[in-house]
Amino acid sequence: MQSLSVNLGERSYPIIIGEEIFNAELIKPYIHAKQVMIVTNDTIAPLYLDALKACLSDYQVDVVILPDGEAYKDLTHLNLIYDGLLAARHNRSTTLIALGGGVVGDMTGYAAASYQRGVNFIQVPTTLLSQVDSSVGGKTGVNHALGKNMIGAFYQPQSVLIDISVFDTLPARELSAGLAEVIKYGLIYDQEFLNWLEAHLDELMAKQSDVLIEAIKRSCEIKAQVVAQDEREGGIRAILNLGHTFGHAIETHQGYGVWLHGEAVAAGTIMAMRMSERLGWISEQDVARAINMFERASLPVTPPDNMSRDDFMSLMAVDKKNLDSRIRLVLLKNIGEAVVTSEYDPAVLNELLDELCL
Amino acid sequence: MQSLSVNLGERSYPIIIGEEIFNAELIKPYIHAKQVMIVTNDTIAPLYLDALKACLSDYQVDVVILPDGEAYKDLTHLNLIYDGLLAARHNRSTTLIALGGGVVGDMTGYAAASYQRGVNFIQVPTTLLSQVDSSVGGKTGVNHALGKNMIGAFYQPQSVLIDISVFDTLPARELSAGLAEVIKYGLIYDQEFLNWLEAHLDELMAKQSDVLIEAIKRSCEIKAQVVAQDEREGGIRAILNLGHTFGHAIETHQGYGVWLHGEAVAAGTIMAMRMSERLGWISEQDVARAINMFERASLPVTPPDNMSRDDFMSLMAVDKKNLDSRIRLVLLKNIGEAVVTSEYDPAVLNELLDELCL
Repeated sequence: MQSLSVNLGERSYPIIIGEEIFNAELIKPYIHAKQVMIVTNDTIAPLYLDALKACLSDYQVDVVILPDGEAYKDLTHLNLIYDGLLAARHNRSTTLIALGGGVVGDMTGYAAASYQRGVNFIQVPTTLLSQVDSSVGGKTGVNHALGKNMIGAFYQPQSVLIDISVFDTLPARELSAGLAEVIKYGLIYDQEFLNWLEAHLDELMAKQSDVLIEAIKRSCEIKAQVVAQDEREGGIRAILNLGHTFGHAIETHQGYGVWLHGEAVAAGTIMAMRMSERLGWISEQDVARAINMFERASLPVTPPDNMSRDDFMSLMAVDKKNLDSRIRLVLLKNIGEAVVTSEYDPAVLNELLDELCL
Repeated sequence: MQSLSVNLGERSYPIIIGEEIFNAELIKPYIHAKQVMIVTNDTIAPLYLDALKACLSDYQVDVVILPDGEAYKDLTHLNLIYDGLLAARHNRSTTLIALGGGVVGDMTGYAAASYQRGVNFIQVPTTLLSQVDSSVGGKTGVNHALGKNMIGAFYQPQSVLIDISVFDTLPARELSAGLAEVIKYGLIYDQEFLNWLEAHLDELMAKQSDVLIEAIKRSCEIKAQVVAQDEREGGIRAILNLGHTFGHAIETHQGYGVWLHGEAVAAGTIMAMRMSERLGWISEQDVARAINMFERASLPVTPPDNMSRDDFMSLMAVDKKNLDSRIRLVLLKNIGEAVVTSEYDPAVLNELLDELCL
C-alpha cells in the first residue's frame, strides 16, 4: 500500500493506492455520520458493489446505479442522484461514495458539491483514467448539449481510495485510455518519468502490479503538485490539459462516448505537439517518440477522418480554457515543460488543422 | 446612498443601498471582462431591464428572461441560463447579473457558481425580501420536487446593489413578505432594532424612503454579521432560519408560490415562538407582541387550515437543518436571542402541532 497527500490547506486529503482497498478500516475514517450513498453504474455494480457494501455494515447504505457512459453525464442523470438522496432522506452529514470511472466520479462529486449546498464524498475510482486524473484535484461536473463539463464545481473529496485489483476486470481499451494521461504527465512535467514509462510500457500494458502502482502514484503526485499550486485553474493548472482542447473538440464532434476521453487526449496531444513543433519549440524526433509511445499503448495519434478544420475551430471556441474567446492552447516548450499560451501566429494553427484534417 | 461590507476574507463584498443604482459608474467596478449576462423574469424585465442595459453599453450584453415564480426555481429552468450562456459563448470571465427577487437571485447565483465551475455575479435585488435576505450571504440554489433549496452552493457575489426606487412597483403583498424577514432580524438578534421597527412599521408600510433604507441597512448588517461568523452554516448562521423549518413545510405542502416565502416565515415564526413559550423561555406577551407586528404588516400568523400535525412532521424531517434526522428548531431564548436546538421534549412539539393544526 502506498499513499500520498493532496495539499490544499483545510481541504487536503489522502490518496491511498493498494490491492485490498475494499476494507472497512480503510474507509471508515472518512465517513463522519450514519448515512452513506454509493453512486455507481450498471457495469461496475455487478463487479464491486457487494464488496464495497460489505465494508459498510455499520451504516445506512443506499445506492444509485446510473447507466454506464459519458452519454449519461448530464443534468437529467445527475437528478437521479438527488432523487435517491431525497427519497432516502439523506441529510447534510451524509457521505457519497463514487464507485466507478471518471463519469461516476465527476457526477458524484458534483452531486456532493450541490446536495444541500455541499456534503462529503469519497472517490473509489475503478479505471486507470479516473485513478490518475479525474479523481484527483476536485474538478466535478456534468456535460451540457453545447459543451463538455460546462456545469460543475471545484470540490474536494475526503479521500481517494485506489484499488488496483480493479484492473482484473478493466477492458484493454480503457487501460490504454488511462495510459494516455499517464504519458501526458511525463510530457508536461517530468522527463525522467517519461523515460521510465518508455522503459516500462510493456509491463504496464501487461498489468504488472508493482509497475502499475508506481505509475499511478507518480501520476497522482504530479497532478497533486500542480493542483496544489493552482486549485481553481487560474494559471499553471491548465497545463494538465495538454491535448484536451483538441481532444474535447473530437469528443464533442463524435458524440460523447464514441471516442474514450483518453483516446481523444492522445490524438489531441499529438496535435498539440505538432503545433509546438511548427513553432520550433520541440523537434520532429520528440513528436515521433510520443507517437511511438501512444501507438505501443494502442492509442490513436491522428484526429478522426470526418473532422474538418472548421469543426475544430468552431468547437474549440467555447472551450472553458479560453479567455475572451481567444483560443488558448497548452503546448510544449520542451519535453517535460508545458506552457499555456494564446501568443502564437493564428496562421500556424490554421496550417496545422489544414494538414491534419479533411 | 449607504453602504456596508460583508466580511468574508477574500470573498468579501459590498452592499450598496440607494435611490439611483442603475448607474454605469456604480456597476462597472464589479464587471471584470467584456461579457455580461442579465438574468431576470417576465415581471421585472418590462420594468427595469432597459434601465440596466442602458448602463452596460460598453459590454456584450445577453439576457435570459425566466418565468416569474418559485414554481420555476428548478433544474429545468436553471438549464435555460446555461443554454443562454453557451449559445452566446460566454467564457469563464463573464459576469452574471441577477435582476429580480429571491428566485432570480438564487438561480442566477447558482448558475454563476456552476457555469464552467464558477464565474462572477452581481445581485440587483428588486424585492424587499431579496434585498434583506437572499441576496446577502451567498446561499444559492434551486428546489427539487422533494424539497426546497435541496440543490445549491455557497457562492458569494461581487456586490449587491439595492435600489429602493423598485418599491414604486413592488406589490403590497411582497412588501409585507419582506417585512417578515426584517422583523425576524429584530427577534433573533437585536431587541433595540425590534423596538425601532415597532415604532416605524406604519412608515415602512407607507414606503417612506429614509425609513426603508434604514431598515434594509440594519437587516443586511445583522445578516452580514451572522454570516461572517459562519459562512457555511455549521452553527450560528442557522439562527437566521427562525420560522423557516415550519415555514418550509408550509410552502412545500401548499405548493411552491401559493404562500409567499415571507408569509410562510411569518406564520412559522409565530409557531416557533409559541414553542419557545411552551418551553418557558419567552412570555405570552412576547408572542402577542410579534403577532401584533406581523398583523400590522398584513402577514399571516397561523398555519394554513388544511395542514395536519403529520403533514408538518413528515415535511420537516427532510429539512436541511436536521442532523441525523432529528428535528432541530430555531427557537427564542429571549426577544433578540435565538438558539438552534434539538434538546427539547418531543412531546412539546407534538402538543404544539396538535393545538395549531386541523
